[in-house]
Amino acid sequence: MLEKNKNIMDKIDHETDENIIWHNQLIIKEKRQILLNQKPCILWFTGLSGSGKSTLANAVETELYKRGIKTYLLDGDNVRHGLNKDLGFSETDRIENIRRIGEVAKLFVDAGLISLTAFISPFKSDRQIAKSLVKYDEFIEVFVNTSLAVCESRDPKGLYEKARNGDIKNFTGIDSPYEIPEEPQIEIKTDELDITQSVDTIISYLIKYGYIDGNENDYAI
Amino acid sequence: MLEKNKNIMDKIDHETDENIIWHNQLIIKEKRQILLNQKPCILWFTGLSGSGKSTLANAVETELYKRGIKTYLLDGDNVRHGLNKDLGFSETDRIENIRRIGEVAKLFVDAGLISLTAFISPFKSDRQIAKSLVKYDEFIEVFVNTSLAVCESRDPKGLYEKARNGDIKNFTGIDSPYEIPEEPQIEIKTDELDITQSVDTIISYLIKYGYIDGNENDYAI
Repeated sequence: MLEKNKNIMDKIDHETDENIIWHNQLIIKEKRQILLNQKPCILWFTGLSGSGKSTLANAVETELYKRGIKTYLLDGDNVRHGLNKDLGFSETDRIENIRRIGEVAKLFVDAGLISLTAFISPFKSDRQIAKSLVKYDEFIEVFVNTSLAVCESRDPKGLYEKARNGDIKNFTGIDSPYEIPEEPQIEIKTDELDITQSVDTIISYLIKYGYIDGNENDYAI
Repeated sequence: MLEKNKNIMDKIDHETDENIIWHNQLIIKEKRQILLNQKPCILWFTGLSGSGKSTLANAVETELYKRGIKTYLLDGDNVRHGLNKDLGFSETDRIENIRRIGEVAKLFVDAGLISLTAFISPFKSDRQIAKSLVKYDEFIEVFVNTSLAVCESRDPKGLYEKARNGDIKNFTGIDSPYEIPEEPQIEIKTDELDITQSVDTIISYLIKYGYIDGNENDYAI
């Protein structure tokens, strides 16, 4: 058990031992933290299309799974086709898209999980809204810093080509800006680190700041 | 470990042991199920305002917590003030409210948790939308059956009085219908069962159908 959890537990027991069934939301975040033995947070990956956000977020989640950490990854696959399927790509919808992702990530934090999000999220103001929803130490901005030239040369979905041809409008990096994070908690320069080193950087951060234990539980993957 | 999980695990290991970092969403629901040792589902509580949905859902969540089960409860408190704060009470917004709750509950199921939702959700069609988002055995409709007379006599928030006076329009049970679930997986007749018996009924269902182990881990509450 993370050391500080014992103190939290004593505090909660003192606060909630009466009339327990009559209060709403009895199982609060601090209690989940004890049950799960991890400190919940949002790992907010931001970067250009093709920068490697999803690949890195998945690799981090895989490493966390091996360590027995409970996580959930929000990305285009499970959000755009579900919760946000009513949204398009207008400015209003884009803002609403990120707002809802932030709100859902917050619910996962409230549930005690480490929530990973992998969206371009190019605008500071949108990232700021997501950040403002949780406590300051619950939001970890991970800037996946890959140059536009590299992203465009990868172009795994052919999106840059379409954007250059004018078939896609308002494409980040081409005809819409990417606002670089000024003070990300973690910056991954993908031209300097390979995937394993990148994952190590993030895992080390989580251990250093007490989100997870340093023990490797070695769950089968 | 739930017995069937071992077989699932063997299957997954066979499927994912190559190029593991190159696929999206590597940590899939079946893997989370192994880590968490529980079968995720949605416990969808439905019933009139004042029927006791929230109280019961909270009591069930508390009992699950004691047993070491990982859960999350969605209710008006954490949804209406966050994710759905842009929605009002028009018919369109009401449908969208339940749709989003269903989508988020689905994400929690995907994350491996037992998700509890406590909303009046008076219309069959809306509950059907939520149900359609997950597998048939992942949606457990819990009808909290309390008579309108009893709900109105409780009236903890004074809403029935306002509805009778015409200060609130389209209030379920007064000037808007509550469509009774025809085949709920669980029906709690609150005039026959007290809260402890009601919780037992739901926990027994979860054990009987393999969502949770029958063991009481007795986590401190």
